[in-house]
Amino acid sequence: MKALWLENNALSFKSDIPRPNQPNEALIRIVHTGLCGTDLEMVKGYYPFTGIPGHEFVGEVVEAPEQEWIGKRVVGEINVVCHQCEQCRSGRPTHCENRSVLGIKNRHGTLAEFTTLPLENLHPIPETVSNEAAVFTEPLAAALEITQQVQIRAADRVLLIGAGRLGQLIAQTLALTGCRLAVIARHDHQKELLSKHKIRLISEKDIQPWSWDFVVEATGSTSGLELARKALRPRGILVLKSTYAGDTTLNLSSFVVDEITVIGSRCGPFGPALQLLETRKVDPTGLISAEFRLEDGLAAFKKAAERGICKVLVSV
Amino acid sequence: MKALWLENNALSFKSDIPRPNQPNEALIRIVHTGLCGTDLEMVKGYYPFTGIPGHEFVGEVVEAPEQEWIGKRVVGEINVVCHQCEQCRSGRPTHCENRSVLGIKNRHGTLAEFTTLPLENLHPIPETVSNEAAVFTEPLAAALEITQQVQIRAADRVLLIGAGRLGQLIAQTLALTGCRLAVIARHDHQKELLSKHKIRLISEKDIQPWSWDFVVEATGSTSGLELARKALRPRGILVLKSTYAGDTTLNLSSFVVDEITVIGSRCGPFGPALQLLETRKVDPTGLISAEFRLEDGLAAFKKAAERGICKVLVSV
Repeated sequence: MKALWLENNALSFKSDIPRPNQPNEALIRIVHTGLCGTDLEMVKGYYPFTGIPGHEFVGEVVEAPEQEWIGKRVVGEINVVCHQCEQCRSGRPTHCENRSVLGIKNRHGTLAEFTTLPLENLHPIPETVSNEAAVFTEPLAAALEITQQVQIRAADRVLLIGAGRLGQLIAQTLALTGCRLAVIARHDHQKELLSKHKIRLISEKDIQPWSWDFVVEATGSTSGLELARKALRPRGILVLKSTYAGDTTLNLSSFVVDEITVIGSRCGPFGPALQLLETRKVDPTGLISAEFRLEDGLAAFKKAAERGICKVLVSV
Repeated sequence: MKALWLENNALSFKSDIPRPNQPNEALIRIVHTGLCGTDLEMVKGYYPFTGIPGHEFVGEVVEAPEQEWIGKRVVGEINVVCHQCEQCRSGRPTHCENRSVLGIKNRHGTLAEFTTLPLENLHPIPETVSNEAAVFTEPLAAALEITQQVQIRAADRVLLIGAGRLGQLIAQTLALTGCRLAVIARHDHQKELLSKHKIRLISEKDIQPWSWDFVVEATGSTSGLELARKALRPRGILVLKSTYAGDTTLNLSSFVVDEITVIGSRCGPFGPALQLLETRKVDPTGLISAEFRLEDGLAAFKKAAERGICKVLVSV
């Protein structure tokens, strides 16, 4: 089959990759894969990975251990878990100690004609949700993880730093809480998208220090982190929604003196994400910046790395 | 009056300091002051401060705007607050934006014959609590701040790193929760004190990574922080109970991937601390390593800075 292949930080297009064969899993024909920051960082060598990348996908089940799945349009949770380790048994399967992760760790991903996943990872897509919307289920679930972890109320002042691929979805989900939300966006295209959803923009120079109840840091940069610390009120909550390349230097004492809470936030719940797409409370399709064929996957990665580009889809 | 005086990181004993005169505050004759890590760091120049240091005290009210306070044995909350700023009005008076802090910021402390504090800062000491126990009220309250911030249950595995002045009190308060507590202590004297209270010791080499629900870091060292991160399970909670001199370098991505929560923890509630002393659920008096007269205050600081020394009292 055709697939993109990552090896030694070099991405290539191949047409001779064997079709995956996992009789205990569903075989899924891929329709779209969305590129995210993790994919770009993998190509930069930030994660060691050899194989087919890609994990935000929509597809159709073509073979399955249970007949009724065949023909279903599906999205899929990316962590394939053991159910045996302490994390699984303690109700934290996304933190499974033996997990493989679709297109990220010990498991080929979705930038290919086919992929496989266990049935338990799959979610059928509601009929009224288009493929172009459904491909955002995984990052939308990640955005929703924030409100799984912290309770944001209408009166809360919430600052989101960063309005890229994930930031846009975070902004839309935070807006649902009714909170007093403001977003720092860098690029005009990002600002237009937010304005379309009536989400308030704020520029860095207008940030009053010590005045925000929550700050969500979605840039993965030290400058974003420093701004977040400055903006937070004492006993405020900082949600880290990006990973940070290499080590980060912080003045930790200020976190202690001001009794700040910092929460790392990763994968989230697919069910609620699909429900928000079905009820159109979140509309991600405006985020699509470009679409490429699988054969043009290298150009797709190049495009996704350009400044201010939002979501790039790779379609089979 | 006699007092210790800190100026340009140099501590001296003086006998010609004017007795404080604040008609709106209580005038308190100091009996004991306990030396803590903050005092030692102030002398090192970690906080800029000129004046009389000292903030963990027990004393007797000799003058007061309200007659009924005169003659009372008291301890006192160290943050003197404005009641006007956003933090005060939002129920976070210990984070008052205009606060002065006894012997730490814009307010002379208690290493003197007398100090003053507003009546609202004072707590009468229950009759059965000795001066030697009551002088621990402030650090015991700081230890209790942890269980104000996080809910620790009997089934929780809680690791405390550090068993110095504050660590010993943290250990005793954490033990009250019934949790599965283990403490990393460096010095034999610290270990003996913990064993007396039947608190389990553990050595660093026996720490299973990824297996603790809570870690309380009370060393203020980078190595303590690294051990804490290693020990915590995914979605575990790290309580920072020490300040960290200068900047700290961290791999923040591991906090995001494992969805770790980090909480800074500072001053705590005096009422519950006095109640624990009165009911003898916490017994701090075993922590007193040495006692000095105010005239020998410089020797007291020198003693407090020795390795493995617990609480040093300065008595008037």
